[in-house]
Order: sequence, then structure tokens, then C-alpha cells
Amino acid sequence: MIRRGHGFLNAPGPTHIPERVLNAMRRQAIDLEDEELTAAIEHCFSGLKPVFGTTQAEIFIYAGNGHGAWESAIANTMSAGDKVLVPQTGHFSTGWAEMAESFGIDCEILPNDLRVATDPAKIAACLDADKSHKIKAVMQVHTDTSTGVTHDIKAIHEAIAATGHPALYMVDSVAALGTCAFEMDAWGIDVAVTASQKGLMCPPGLGIVAASARALEAHKTSTAPRRYWDWSQRRHTAHYRAFGGTCPEHLIFALDEALRMIEEEGLEAIYRRHFHLAEAVRRAVDVWAEGGALEIHALHPAERSNGVTAIRTAEGIDPVELRLLVRQMMRTSVAGGLGQLRGRAFRIGHLGDLNEPMILGSLAAVETSLEMLDIAHQKGGVTAAIDYIAGIKKTELAAARAALREKAA
Amino acid sequence: MIRRGHGFLNAPGPTHIPERVLNAMRRQAIDLEDEELTAAIEHCFSGLKPVFGTTQAEIFIYAGNGHGAWESAIANTMSAGDKVLVPQTGHFSTGWAEMAESFGIDCEILPNDLRVATDPAKIAACLDADKSHKIKAVMQVHTDTSTGVTHDIKAIHEAIAATGHPALYMVDSVAALGTCAFEMDAWGIDVAVTASQKGLMCPPGLGIVAASARALEAHKTSTAPRRYWDWSQRRHTAHYRAFGGTCPEHLIFALDEALRMIEEEGLEAIYRRHFHLAEAVRRAVDVWAEGGALEIHALHPAERSNGVTAIRTAEGIDPVELRLLVRQMMRTSVAGGLGQLRGRAFRIGHLGDLNEPMILGSLAAVETSLEMLDIAHQKGGVTAAIDYIAGIKKTELAAARAALREKAA
Repeated sequence: MIRRGHGFLNAPGPTHIPERVLNAMRRQAIDLEDEELTAAIEHCFSGLKPVFGTTQAEIFIYAGNGHGAWESAIANTMSAGDKVLVPQTGHFSTGWAEMAESFGIDCEILPNDLRVATDPAKIAACLDADKSHKIKAVMQVHTDTSTGVTHDIKAIHEAIAATGHPALYMVDSVAALGTCAFEMDAWGIDVAVTASQKGLMCPPGLGIVAASARALEAHKTSTAPRRYWDWSQRRHTAHYRAFGGTCPEHLIFALDEALRMIEEEGLEAIYRRHFHLAEAVRRAVDVWAEGGALEIHALHPAERSNGVTAIRTAEGIDPVELRLLVRQMMRTSVAGGLGQLRGRAFRIGHLGDLNEPMILGSLAAVETSLEMLDIAHQKGGVTAAIDYIAGIKKTELAAARAALREKAA
Repeated sequence: MIRRGHGFLNAPGPTHIPERVLNAMRRQAIDLEDEELTAAIEHCFSGLKPVFGTTQAEIFIYAGNGHGAWESAIANTMSAGDKVLVPQTGHFSTGWAEMAESFGIDCEILPNDLRVATDPAKIAACLDADKSHKIKAVMQVHTDTSTGVTHDIKAIHEAIAATGHPALYMVDSVAALGTCAFEMDAWGIDVAVTASQKGLMCPPGLGIVAASARALEAHKTSTAPRRYWDWSQRRHTAHYRAFGGTCPEHLIFALDEALRMIEEEGLEAIYRRHFHLAEAVRRAVDVWAEGGALEIHALHPAERSNGVTAIRTAEGIDPVELRLLVRQMMRTSVAGGLGQLRGRAFRIGHLGDLNEPMILGSLAAVETSLEMLDIAHQKGGVTAAIDYIAGIKKTELAAARAALREKAA
């Protein structure tokens, strides 16, 4: 296949990787004890803390992926026969629960309409009903990338705290971290899980876990068999121990550089940029939706993810074909539906190293494909996105000019 | 620190990475279902088989490392309470056994002088004594990188087979695969374990396991808790399943290219090159050893590894300082002693993407450092290595000339 120009990657991970990160990784292997690697490792451990919103938690970085980090969270804190509460969020709450079941954990699934966020009161009710404190943890997905719904991690914390129930609060923020606020310490999160290839702008290959003091305490009595993921093995200054064997040094150099870029931009600016790009996508989809065949899956605007938008397709539309043709004919990758939405939705990722023309180009590719495939849609989605972005830019421009004038005065 | 020129990396992993492999990895992320990634993944799975010497085994590739692959071998075939036989080879038989113990496995350690290879007859004796077949597996390290001793995997297979004992034969070939013959099918190996950063010439970040039909059969009744490593989960055509979540695509593109280079050179030529480079190192060390302070750890020439040479240091020599100064002042990384040899040895890695001037340069850096540090040694180690290499090259040159003459005639 002839491929001209660069592709547009709008899967919700792997995401576009900054040239700086690719360059940081494009280097010869070095000795595991080389000072340069030591500095990069130390920056990864320290630089992840603000992204997790923690000064207290211990960070673990694995050669692995998000599923590996899930396993670390479970195998380090649980024992066979333990019970956990898993609010249903979509494909990823199911996957995490299945993993827990593999470790002999009894999962109480809190059913939920996948188009809305978990109701914190329902979690509280489950915990209140659990008088004997059988539930050892609440396993909550932050943004389920299959639905594009972002759950209110702070409100759930407050609901849990109000019950006085001692369950650990474990949060999968693989698809959310780095796209919106995450305050591990302030929100009483005990275990947070993420991976390298989404908001962290790196290639896939690292699973990352942050553990609170309470989680480390629970770890001491947890009996699930583990070694590779074992926090005790990894709490060690020797890098060979901290990485459970050979450190994936190229990915560490990538993360080191990505964290530097995150520090330069600042977390607040990153979250704002993500919101603007997400909103541009939603403006476009809302226009297309007037044609009657497409609809944003997440019902409530306030619950729509900064990182990914799942778009439901009407009967008779084949989103698998749509996805394939957008990729092959318009060089733009969108993702398919997962779990309950398999064959009934496609997803546009808008997280990580993205800017306005990138997302507008991707939206234009999708709009072109809707037109090409005669999928019913209202034209002008991209125009609406442009209008929205132009409004943001107008405000930014006015502020920049005002600042210049002030400086000149 | 000012660093001019390139470093010489003679740790036994991570090893020098070919430019072609670095370039293959230096690319933008792509969609997990992109045809280009699919082709690379398929080549990785098929291309690893000849390196393992198998047409029968199933290959599993993990975002992980060698320790992760160890865990895959154990968690997929064993159950708590099972017993395994672990012939002592050094730091890595200890590590693998400790990992098995984490899964409630009872490890019978077969003690061994770490300067010689495992005696196959002793393994056979253990199995013969195990009338009730309590031993479920023999866990044998091929080359223990801490000792530089290569164990005779074929002879051990023959000894096991002669007993008729049904134990699985599991081999850690992390430090050997791609440096010397490995015949999984012919040698009755049930589980073989390796990683990306040694003979496979890639960055660290992949753990690789090959499983025989017998191992897959044992897997069915094994009850160790597992999910990320689970072979059943991963025996799936969908890549997202085959990689237990997001595929580490950059490392896959690296391995894809490295396997292409292995195919171009040919396994026999690769093993021969490794033997020649290893022998050059040994010639140099043997000369230095005449000074009385250094000695090759592996006692028997036939058991000396193609990939790494451990060099014992006499009392009063600080190999940690030697290692640090060779790296800082001569830009050459050698490795330290591990396990019983910690503080009593250093190691020269000679595996992967290496050629003659690279290894001669490294040997010269070590010889310079011995001189600089007034460590007793006979001068002329590098000269001996040059003589040896020149002899090899002379033969190659004669053969090339003869071939040319034949072509001309």
C-alpha cells in the first residue's frame, strides 16, 4: 500500500508520540548502572508524583502494560477469598474484575447504565450494607475508554469516606491520567494504575502503579502469590531490584522526556488543552448527530471524557467498515467499539500529544468518510469544531495582546 | 561529565543495539490494528521459532523482561505445593527458584560447584530417586550470566529422558539464546525463557517464552493464579489478547528488524561469530591471568559461555572500583560480580551485535585500566586476542580468495 504524508492517530492509545520523546528513545543501550540512566529513572519516579497528585504515594514502574499494572494492584493488596466491589463502567471494569477473579477474588459487580457515570451513593450503599467489612477494595475505572464516560473519582471518594468503611480505593486511570485532574492524596486514592501510551505520550510498554501508605500496609498481609509485580521486592534503591530485573531503559528515557514536556506545559494547561480538543470533537459529533445515525454515547455533558469520545452508530451502519476505511482511505485511525458497544460504536481518541489542527484534520477525515459511505449525518461538523476552536483562540489572542500592551506600557 | 566518542557496552545485557533496530523503533505510534503492525507481530512469532529451534512450540511475547518470562513459565505450568528440581548454577538459578517459592512451589536445589556445569547424571539421580514423581519440572539455567558457565542442555535432556521421569524440562536461556545452539524440539525442552536485550539485539522490555505441547498440557491442570502471563488468555489471534492488553509496538518493530538481521546472517554464522569473539576474550584474560590476580571463573574450556566471561579477582582487588573506572575513564561498560561472586569478579559480555574491533577495543580498555590501577597482570592480552582473530580472519580470507578463483575459473 502506498502511504503518503503522516497518519492521524486517534485511537485512545497508543497515542501520537512527540518527536522529542522518540528522539530520547532513539539511542544506544547503556549500562544499567550508568549515571545517565540513574538520573532518568529518578526523574521518572519523582516526575510521576505530581501527575498522580501525590507527594505521599510510592511509585512502581513495570515493563508491562495497563493490564500488568492492574495485576500489580490486585496481587499486591489482595488474598484469595477476599471480596471487592467493582462498579460497572464498561469493558475495562469487566476486564479488571476478571483479572481479580483469576486471583480467587470475589467480585461484587455494581451494575450501571454504561451511558452514565457511577452514582457515588450506590457505592456508599453497598459499603453501608457490608457491616462485616468483607469488601476489601472498591475498584473504580476513572475513564472507561470503551464508553468515553469519566467517573467522578473525587465524589466517589467522598461517598466512601462518609461511610467510614475501610475498603481500599483503587482507581484505574489508564485512559484519564494526564488528561484531567487526578489528586491521589486529596481524594484518598490508595492504588492508582496507569500506562505509558496515553496521557503520558510514550510508546506502550510500561505499566505504572502508585500506592498509598494504606495500600502498602494492606500489602503486608496480602497473600496473593506474586514476584514480578511484588512491591516489597521493588522497594529497593538498586535499579535491578526496582524494575524486577532488567530496566526497560529506552522506555524510561522516553518517559523521562515526556515528563519534562509535561512539566514545561504544566498540568493545568494540559487539562485545559484536553478539554478544548475534546469539546471540539463533541461539537462536530453533535452536528453530525442531527442526521439521526450517530450519537455521543455518554449521556451527560459533564461526564464526557477529556480523552476519548465513543460515538454510537444506528442500526445498519457498520462501524468496523467505517473504521477500516477511515484508516485506509483517509490515513486516520479511530477505534472500534468494545464490550457491549462492539459493532455498535466507534471511538475518537483525543488525548496526549495533540493540537488543534491535528484534531481538526482527524474530524475532517471522519466527516469525509461519513460522506463517502453515505452515512446519514448533518454536514458542518468540522465547521462547528472550527468555530469552537476559533472562539478559544480569540480569547487567547486577546489575552496575549493585553499582556503585550501591559508589558509595553 | 564530558563524553566524547561512543561508549563500548560489554555488560552481558543490555547489549549493543544495531542502528537498523534503533531506526525500526524510531517511529510514530500506529493503530494496534494497522496492517504494518500485524505483519511485524506475525514475523516476531514466526521468526523466533528457528532461534528457539522449534517448529512445534507456541511462542508468547510479553511486555516485561526475563524475570517476567520466568514468572510466565512457573505460573502457567505449576500449582502451589508442586515440587521442582533446580540445579544450582549461580545467581540466576537462585532467582528463578525464589520466584517459584513465591508461588508456593517446593524447590529442591541440586547443589553445584559454580565453576563447573551441572552434571546431567546428578539430575538423573534426583529424578530416579523420585519414585512417586513428585518433581513436576527441572528448572535449568542455560548460561548463568553470573558465572559465564554454559550448561549442556542437550546432555541434560538425554539424562532426563533416560530416566523416563515425566518432569517438564524448563530452560532459562535468557543469556544464551542467539549465542549458541538451542534445539527446543530435538532436546525435549518444554518451556524455554528468554528476553529481548541479549542475543536478540533489542532494547530491554520484552520477555519471551516458548512452550511445548507437553507444557501446554500441564498448563491445563496448573492452578497457580495468573492473568497477565496466562497462556490461555494469550492464545488468541486478536493482538490485544495475544499481548494481554496493549502490544508494546515499538519493541515489536525492533524485534521484527532484529530477527530479519538474524535471518540474513544465519544462526550457524551467528554462533560461530560468538564463539570467535568469546575465544578472543578468553585468550586475552588467560594472558592477563599469568600475573596471578585474575582468572576465568569457568574452570573447563568446553563449558565457557559464548556470551559472557566472568573473571575472578584476587584478594585486595576491588572489582567494583575497576568496573566504575573502566566505564568512567575508558567509556567501556563491563559488569560486576553477582551472587557469590559479588565483589570478587567482573564480567565481560560478548554477545549480540558485536564485531571484532568492538571486542578488541573493549579488551584494550580493560587492559589499560588494569595497567592504570596497577592490578597485577601479564601484558599482551590484547595482542593474544589480535593474534587469535587474525588467525580466524586469515582462514576466512583464504576461503574467500579460493571462492573468487573458483568463480573466475
